[in-house]
Amino acid sequence: MADRPEPRTYISTHTSDAIYIRDKSLVDELIGELSFTEMAYFQIMGERPTAAQRRILDAAMVGLMEHGLTPSVVATRMVYMSCPEALQSAVAAGLCAVGSVFVGTMEGCARLLDDIVAAPDSAARARQIATEYRAEKKRLPGFGHNLHKPDDPRTPRFLEVAKREDIPGRHIAALQLLGEAVDEVYGRHITINATGGIAAILREIDIPWDVMRGIAVIARAAGLVGHIREERAYPAGMRIWEAAEESIPYAGEAPFNE
Amino acid sequence: MADRPEPRTYISTHTSDAIYIRDKSLVDELIGELSFTEMAYFQIMGERPTAAQRRILDAAMVGLMEHGLTPSVVATRMVYMSCPEALQSAVAAGLCAVGSVFVGTMEGCARLLDDIVAAPDSAARARQIATEYRAEKKRLPGFGHNLHKPDDPRTPRFLEVAKREDIPGRHIAALQLLGEAVDEVYGRHITINATGGIAAILREIDIPWDVMRGIAVIARAAGLVGHIREERAYPAGMRIWEAAEESIPYAGEAPFNE
Amino acid sequence: MADRPEPRTYISTHTSDAIYIRDKSLVDELIGELSFTEMAYFQIMGERPTAAQRRILDAAMVGLMEHGLTPSVVATRMVYMSCPEALQSAVAAGLCAVGSVFVGTMEGCARLLDDIVAAPDSAARARQIATEYRAEKKRLPGFGHNLHKPDDPRTPRFLEVAKREDIPGRHIAALQLLGEAVDEVYGRHITINATGGIAAILREIDIPWDVMRGIAVIARAAGLVGHIREERAYPAGMRIWEAAEESIPYAGEAPFNE
Amino acid sequence: MADRPEPRTYISTHTSDAIYIRDKSLVDELIGELSFTEMAYFQIMGERPTAAQRRILDAAMVGLMEHGLTPSVVATRMVYMSCPEALQSAVAAGLCAVGSVFVGTMEGCARLLDDIVAAPDSAARARQIATEYRAEKKRLPGFGHNLHKPDDPRTPRFLEVAKREDIPGRHIAALQLLGEAVDEVYGRHITINATGGIAAILREIDIPWDVMRGIAVIARAAGLVGHIREERAYPAGMRIWEAAEESIPYAGEAPFNE
Repeated sequence: MADRPEPRTYISTHTSDAIYIRDKSLVDELIGELSFTEMAYFQIMGERPTAAQRRILDAAMVGLMEHGLTPSVVATRMVYMSCPEALQSAVAAGLCAVGSVFVGTMEGCARLLDDIVAAPDSAARARQIATEYRAEKKRLPGFGHNLHKPDDPRTPRFLEVAKREDIPGRHIAALQLLGEAVDEVYGRHITINATGGIAAILREIDIPWDVMRGIAVIARAAGLVGHIREERAYPAGMRIWEAAEESIPYAGEAPFNE
Repeated sequence: MADRPEPRTYISTHTSDAIYIRDKSLVDELIGELSFTEMAYFQIMGERPTAAQRRILDAAMVGLMEHGLTPSVVATRMVYMSCPEALQSAVAAGLCAVGSVFVGTMEGCARLLDDIVAAPDSAARARQIATEYRAEKKRLPGFGHNLHKPDDPRTPRFLEVAKREDIPGRHIAALQLLGEAVDEVYGRHITINATGGIAAILREIDIPWDVMRGIAVIARAAGLVGHIREERAYPAGMRIWEAAEESIPYAGEAPFNE
Repeated sequence: MADRPEPRTYISTHTSDAIYIRDKSLVDELIGELSFTEMAYFQIMGERPTAAQRRILDAAMVGLMEHGLTPSVVATRMVYMSCPEALQSAVAAGLCAVGSVFVGTMEGCARLLDDIVAAPDSAARARQIATEYRAEKKRLPGFGHNLHKPDDPRTPRFLEVAKREDIPGRHIAALQLLGEAVDEVYGRHITINATGGIAAILREIDIPWDVMRGIAVIARAAGLVGHIREERAYPAGMRIWEAAEESIPYAGEAPFNE
Repeated sequence: MADRPEPRTYISTHTSDAIYIRDKSLVDELIGELSFTEMAYFQIMGERPTAAQRRILDAAMVGLMEHGLTPSVVATRMVYMSCPEALQSAVAAGLCAVGSVFVGTMEGCARLLDDIVAAPDSAARARQIATEYRAEKKRLPGFGHNLHKPDDPRTPRFLEVAKREDIPGRHIAALQLLGEAVDEVYGRHITINATGGIAAILREIDIPWDVMRGIAVIARAAGLVGHIREERAYPAGMRIWEAAEESIPYAGEAPFNE
């Protein structure tokens, strides 16, 4: 494979008296100088974010951190109650649930927005996408919410926070075009949900669609640590376990090979 | 660290036309010759089990595989519903729960049995242990069950299966001595639970206490794959999630820093 | 969703003096009666395997357990050296690597074999598949091996073990038809690799393609426990860590946004 | 268990048009208002950090994010190369390595500092601890570094960043007392390492010792996402795998049962 890049790393090196991350001195240029969010952007993207980019990433990560007793949280609490000596395993188990069902819609929406932004006629492309998804009865990523109706309250907030910053604005515009096309094509208002809003604002700060899952993982890790601390103070795992058992009745021998 | 053993492996090597595991040819000596249980023992312990050892390990692993909707299973189902494309992650999340609370008692009981076996007067040592645990109100690993009363039905079965084999029998004897001592010292019958029984029979086939958790992990992996297959056919994750949410009420602002 | 099956479980229930798994008494009908492999099949498939099915599943799992210092093993050893108190997390981390790259080929091959078996003219379908994959330069799952040339020694062994049993034989025949078609269409001999052989024999015992990853996970769990035990006796993790660092040079500032 | 607190949650609730986290409106009071670091502190600790607390937490998390090709990173890269479709599993596998060996020293040091702070004569308690550890030849958590000699360059930076803030300063003072006692009792200068410095500054902002591992997990998650992005652009996993294999020679049949 002649054209596969040689293994190398651009991330970190060290000497006996210094540590460098992305060629900056950890001690002299990073600790005490960057916020966590700036450092995360720098680590992942290879360049320091602008203040606008940092504020938008902060908003997205604040919005991604906590969603109540989600499947992730349930997994984390189950593992924590079984293995309190390894907090990190409990977080890891919960993070395994940050998969296609949850963040896949963010990724899918980001790809649609890229597609609309790249099209010569963005409005036409948005209508075309809405028409296709409707015809094929596919779930449109970034749209619809089973609880928050008529509108997911987070989405306008994400867009408002981003719009007050100096950003290109093309992905936000693409999302709004798509939203209008959807309402028209489907003949009714369908909310842009939080994953749609986050997809748009993360694309505005250059986060590619295939890194977005990583952003969700980082934010979720903090959410899960909060639940572990609460589980320690107010153990709920046992009750969740009982509730799980009670909710799924035993039905005898399987009627046929599933 | 002059006396740390040099890194090396005794497990596996290969050439262009052969694969060796523990110096046996995988193709000529293992596939089609050993059962999974024999191979697992061979892989972990470095020697083929006798037929007696194999049957006892089979019994222990059959007993460890499945326990209903345990925290492990709940974690696995939560991850699987969120990320169906990565079955292995769902199993991994569930296995993270095979920790101190569940298998710690097996390990703790095994260590007590080793202690009793090594003592010059085993019956005296068993009484001493029972007395100590009672005085310090510590949970005696391998004893007691909140559901199975007066007796855990699995324990006599494990011991019976093992006793019909040609084994040393010292750890089973130690468990029985400890059980008698416990009943006497506590002044009432306390059941030897399944983890106690498994600890004894795994020690009879030379599994050290610190490998037992691994045996539970292997058996549990099979149990969890069964639950994933059922989750696919009869999705229960959503109901479990709802049940979890309903079971843990929101209580407003925390009254004080936890 | 009116037609979604009601949540329920067919796997396990218990009373104060009995535990049932798939409607059989764990104590009276399973422990001491079934081998681990029989129990795993029963747990996952809902029915006891025949002796032929059990022997084939044993052969497949023996073949899947251990492959030397694979990425899975490296991950497990890294976690174990960092967190020796949670053996289960180290196994879990390694199992996360039993993903598309490793077991995806087994699944992909199984689907091709199902396709060939279902075709009215199996030989024609096999040729068609080989022609398509060649034309589109796609990797043909179950074929080719970078080390074992001209032939993967495991494959004929898997097939031989299966053929001596009373099985339908249609998936093995499909694999052989596909192998012949491949050699003809590509104009050279391409070995059927071990994952191809395992896919065929697991289909012969009714394991669906989407459960195969689970079979690999179970077998691999045992392999990883063996490596953890060795890591404890002969720590190699530190050396692997150093070798990893030495093998990936630091290349300075990234030349451009990756 | 009459005195076990009732299961409940103080973390999150929602209505059809609002989401509350720790009783604040996510949309109106958190998104666009708090930085990630402030939100993480709020989620975990239940109260908003002061600006001083936020800056110190930022400094600690910036310092914890990235340490080169650590065991965590190696595990993550191994899983990612095997299962690129599940980025979250690769992060999870790496986080499983944030265990006792790595963060145990931070926790251990934090407990010593609490002990010194609580003592009537802190200097005397520091000397007593140093004397005890030396006599029992135990590793003193937070002290010593195999690479960074004579001093870990991060430690003074962490302390300097914290000292310019309005904080109680008692844990930093305790660390310095312990450092002086160590040099005196051991008769030579032993550096306070980065985990010691982080332990002190995290205690200054009220993070309890048993939450510190969670802080490390969050910061590390960001580090690992950076490595996954690099692995995608410059695949190094294969080379690491080869290096691992080459570094651990096969040594034949094990000389004795390990």
